[in-house]
Amino acid sequence: MEDVHARAPAPGTVSLRSVGIVGIRKPLVVQRPDRVNSLAVTFRIGVDLPSARKGSDLSRNAEILAEIVDRSTERPAESLETVCSDIAQELLLRHPYASEATVEAEAEYFLRRGASASRRSFEDFTLLAEARAHRGTEGEISVARTVGAEAVGMTACPCAMESCRSELEAEFPRLREPEFARLPIVTHNQRNRTRLLFELAGGPGVEVDAVIDAIEAAQSGPTFAILKREDEARVVLDAHRRPKFVEDVLRDLLASLPARFPQVPDEAIVRASTVSEESIHKYNVEASHRVALAELRREASG
Amino acid sequence: MEDVHARAPAPGTVSLRSVGIVGIRKPLVVQRPDRVNSLAVTFRIGVDLPSARKGSDLSRNAEILAEIVDRSTERPAESLETVCSDIAQELLLRHPYASEATVEAEAEYFLRRGASASRRSFEDFTLLAEARAHRGTEGEISVARTVGAEAVGMTACPCAMESCRSELEAEFPRLREPEFARLPIVTHNQRNRTRLLFELAGGPGVEVDAVIDAIEAAQSGPTFAILKREDEARVVLDAHRRPKFVEDVLRDLLASLPARFPQVPDEAIVRASTVSEESIHKYNVEASHRVALAELRREASG
Amino acid sequence: MEDVHARAPAPGTVSLRSVGIVGIRKPLVVQRPDRVNSLAVTFRIGVDLPSARKGSDLSRNAEILAEIVDRSTERPAESLETVCSDIAQELLLRHPYASEATVEAEAEYFLRRGASASRRSFEDFTLLAEARAHRGTEGEISVARTVGAEAVGMTACPCAMESCRSELEAEFPRLREPEFARLPIVTHNQRNRTRLLFELAGGPGVEVDAVIDAIEAAQSGPTFAILKREDEARVVLDAHRRPKFVEDVLRDLLASLPARFPQVPDEAIVRASTVSEESIHKYNVEASHRVALAELRREASG
Amino acid sequence: MEDVHARAPAPGTVSLRSVGIVGIRKPLVVQRPDRVNSLAVTFRIGVDLPSARKGSDLSRNAEILAEIVDRSTERPAESLETVCSDIAQELLLRHPYASEATVEAEAEYFLRRGASASRRSFEDFTLLAEARAHRGTEGEISVARTVGAEAVGMTACPCAMESCRSELEAEFPRLREPEFARLPIVTHNQRNRTRLLFELAGGPGVEVDAVIDAIEAAQSGPTFAILKREDEARVVLDAHRRPKFVEDVLRDLLASLPARFPQVPDEAIVRASTVSEESIHKYNVEASHRVALAELRREASG
Repeated sequence: MEDVHARAPAPGTVSLRSVGIVGIRKPLVVQRPDRVNSLAVTFRIGVDLPSARKGSDLSRNAEILAEIVDRSTERPAESLETVCSDIAQELLLRHPYASEATVEAEAEYFLRRGASASRRSFEDFTLLAEARAHRGTEGEISVARTVGAEAVGMTACPCAMESCRSELEAEFPRLREPEFARLPIVTHNQRNRTRLLFELAGGPGVEVDAVIDAIEAAQSGPTFAILKREDEARVVLDAHRRPKFVEDVLRDLLASLPARFPQVPDEAIVRASTVSEESIHKYNVEASHRVALAELRREASG
Repeated sequence: MEDVHARAPAPGTVSLRSVGIVGIRKPLVVQRPDRVNSLAVTFRIGVDLPSARKGSDLSRNAEILAEIVDRSTERPAESLETVCSDIAQELLLRHPYASEATVEAEAEYFLRRGASASRRSFEDFTLLAEARAHRGTEGEISVARTVGAEAVGMTACPCAMESCRSELEAEFPRLREPEFARLPIVTHNQRNRTRLLFELAGGPGVEVDAVIDAIEAAQSGPTFAILKREDEARVVLDAHRRPKFVEDVLRDLLASLPARFPQVPDEAIVRASTVSEESIHKYNVEASHRVALAELRREASG
Repeated sequence: MEDVHARAPAPGTVSLRSVGIVGIRKPLVVQRPDRVNSLAVTFRIGVDLPSARKGSDLSRNAEILAEIVDRSTERPAESLETVCSDIAQELLLRHPYASEATVEAEAEYFLRRGASASRRSFEDFTLLAEARAHRGTEGEISVARTVGAEAVGMTACPCAMESCRSELEAEFPRLREPEFARLPIVTHNQRNRTRLLFELAGGPGVEVDAVIDAIEAAQSGPTFAILKREDEARVVLDAHRRPKFVEDVLRDLLASLPARFPQVPDEAIVRASTVSEESIHKYNVEASHRVALAELRREASG
Repeated sequence: MEDVHARAPAPGTVSLRSVGIVGIRKPLVVQRPDRVNSLAVTFRIGVDLPSARKGSDLSRNAEILAEIVDRSTERPAESLETVCSDIAQELLLRHPYASEATVEAEAEYFLRRGASASRRSFEDFTLLAEARAHRGTEGEISVARTVGAEAVGMTACPCAMESCRSELEAEFPRLREPEFARLPIVTHNQRNRTRLLFELAGGPGVEVDAVIDAIEAAQSGPTFAILKREDEARVVLDAHRRPKFVEDVLRDLLASLPARFPQVPDEAIVRASTVSEESIHKYNVEASHRVALAELRREASG
């Protein structure tokens, strides 16, 4: 039977930037240096569609995932971003009419973390990876990968802290004395989700555990499943000693990247976003930015 | 054509507790004493299905909503719960084979609220209503209505506050002095969603604004869209002066009901639930209870 | 420091039916006869709270999960429901004031399935498990477990099929002839999600793969990630040869259980629910039922 | 007290592309030619933050919404997109340090629609609007508005229809005869959500009812709450007479715009996206495109 997808559509038909499948879930086994990770991954994969073609045969997309991802249960993959890169290239191979293939992936990721060494348990994070494969005019294929993660921590608000201090100093005048200058003061605090992604044209990759560490260091503080009395107080007080707007979370995160990721090339583009689920409002506050690592290095050095 | 739904199914077919439609959205105009409210309501409506019948004709459900709810744009309804009650009764009329009809409704609801009189703006809440119509063996129909609301406020944790005080007293010994006994101490606080519903067999209804007031009074504090400096400090400090576990939010809410709702009959059943989106954990904490108002009155009186 | 949670609350305080944590995610490794499954599980765990106690110490809940679930990465667990049962019993141990402990768990589950043997790939399903531990007046603990699954398939509507046949016979009169009696006719079809759960007081458990098979057999047809031309036609035509209301899906599923699960005790309670995301409406249709397996066996036998 | 937000941050601090509030819900009353619409709107509003400033004072964002949106209950607004434009300009006024202000809004929208004139009832759609205000180097402010909508319809798959015809012709050879050439054949169909947005620099606006009409005409068919027997057959058969890939939905939609929106300027940018919730898969398929209306006019004319 004639392939419906390959037919030429009516004259005057436009090309389409993206056609694909979304929300397909697959198990992926990844071999890390010290352990094997089993991830349940949600994929979104698509290609562009030229005006000369009626449809993108989407069953090929599902087949590619079956081949590349399913086989990892027998032969573990190197990483989620490597798998995304392989899928993107395979998309261009199986859709010879396409010039752009896009892969987006998201997976839950567990790490043993704790407020103290004796209280570590699995905490959940989100692994993020993307790949874009481009077919040039000579047929050459280039791939850009994006790697990152999202972590849930907390933010404590600095301006509410100053307002509260003002109020409390009126009621408790001794608070003005130098001995209380460093007393952490009451403020509103809340759950914060922050994402950090590196768009890499090539070169060395990025360790997602390091991405998670960078995020947690930029928030007012991390979150933990188990917090017994003394740990809970320390986590809460530490967060109040580092009060941050969402603007600060993002800026501190970006400022920390040159030192934390010296191996990542200058051309890498950094995407960061953060959302705090404000305890005093029914809405959330957010901030986002996109900047070349080269610019962050310039800011850091002078 | 024969009605497929009315056919007798195969012998040995069981009855079904509920068959219906869910997620249908309709605009409802409600006439209150002082104003007209326009609500976008999400409905779930269904009936039971006896073993002798193959299917419930669900187009009748959609027709009932079109008649009862759509017409409110011309002739405003009395309240969301009255509309639910009318729908439940109409369901039994149009499904003569059924004995139980259930209606659940949820709508966004705006009230002007503010931290101070000059800073009031529309805050969003959720209106909840249910109705259950029962056809007795003599054909008599009885209707039970449920009315309630959900509000987003904040909770501040009392035990973390005590742990933090211990820690801070070690670093700032003067905090132990009587003059600081009432100083609000740092703790983790977070967004809290609390629901309160009254299951009423009959009798006077319940004002949803009063339900919202009861919820906000039981949380550590309410949330507001606009909080300028002095209001923000006051809201935060007030919440820290009323630290509560989710257990306390629920118990304070239930304990307040006899005084707040003297007109509601003893036989009314109260359902309450609360969820705090803990700022120090990646998970939430919750509490729920179901109790007759009569029992709450007994606890209140002695 | 005094345990805030253990304090006696104000007189007149009510007990609470449930207090706990929700939305906590943990990795669980399960040893099956033929393979090891890695599951990312979402848990909800709680206990009741007597009136004499101010709070439930929820850090114990997180500790229980860390001990029982986290350790499975070193020593795989027997099954998700066994783990839930262990957690429920441990909850009663660590909350000696409680009489009821409830555990609910949900995990993504992958099985290799395909429309044909050569086209199998991982399909995603949902594993469901619950456990309720009760402490009797003599201190004796009993546990009830619930096991089940959810699968996404499709339903094709029988009454729209009859209406369409009527219309088409008017335009194509030859369709009335006996030779076309078995021609599958156009109808609306859609995604359907169906859940089946067994509440077991004790006795042999239930294989979740068998639950998934039962669900897929009851829908008009299953869904697959990869469907090449001939498989796609067969899957679509098979579904149109088995058109079903949501009422039929549920009834066929329940009717199939005596033959499919002969080992499950009579006292087991079956919970089933189904939702079809109707392609001709903006809303969904649903059906649900709860019945003892004993009654299903009675209906099956005559 | 010193304004924390206005402080200069540490040297080397980067600017941020966007800081704002998200998920804030407000009631908006809009005066249309023939009626008044009450909308519950969800807003996202933010501005950029230069490196010289520590924070964006987000309480101003909430105040702007309170003033511009809340007042519509007394003085109805012209349209959702006008309101977004006013908010964007006011954002630049109240954040004098910012150069870019972005507003995104989404609201539920009800229209009386039906499969036949006697069966019309309220159907729910989504109104979409955006505004971007830019402050040029001379201080001049320009505003770009985006208007659009989303509608839920259905798609029927053309290639599965051909595969099914092949299979059925083998079993029912008479189907090959010319008299059955136009017989609608079985295929999988599903819920489809399609969005269409116009980015307008200025000039006449766009009627959202016309956007909804364009979307419904491009899908295989629309969806309705009430479908009695004969209407249901017609809606299903019509959809099967217009089978479309998501690629076709998007292309037909884009191709229809020159004729449907002659008043919209050439420079307008069109954004369209579509998602079909495939009944034969567990995942969805999607397509998206972005193109100048001028190019669509070129394609249409030759």
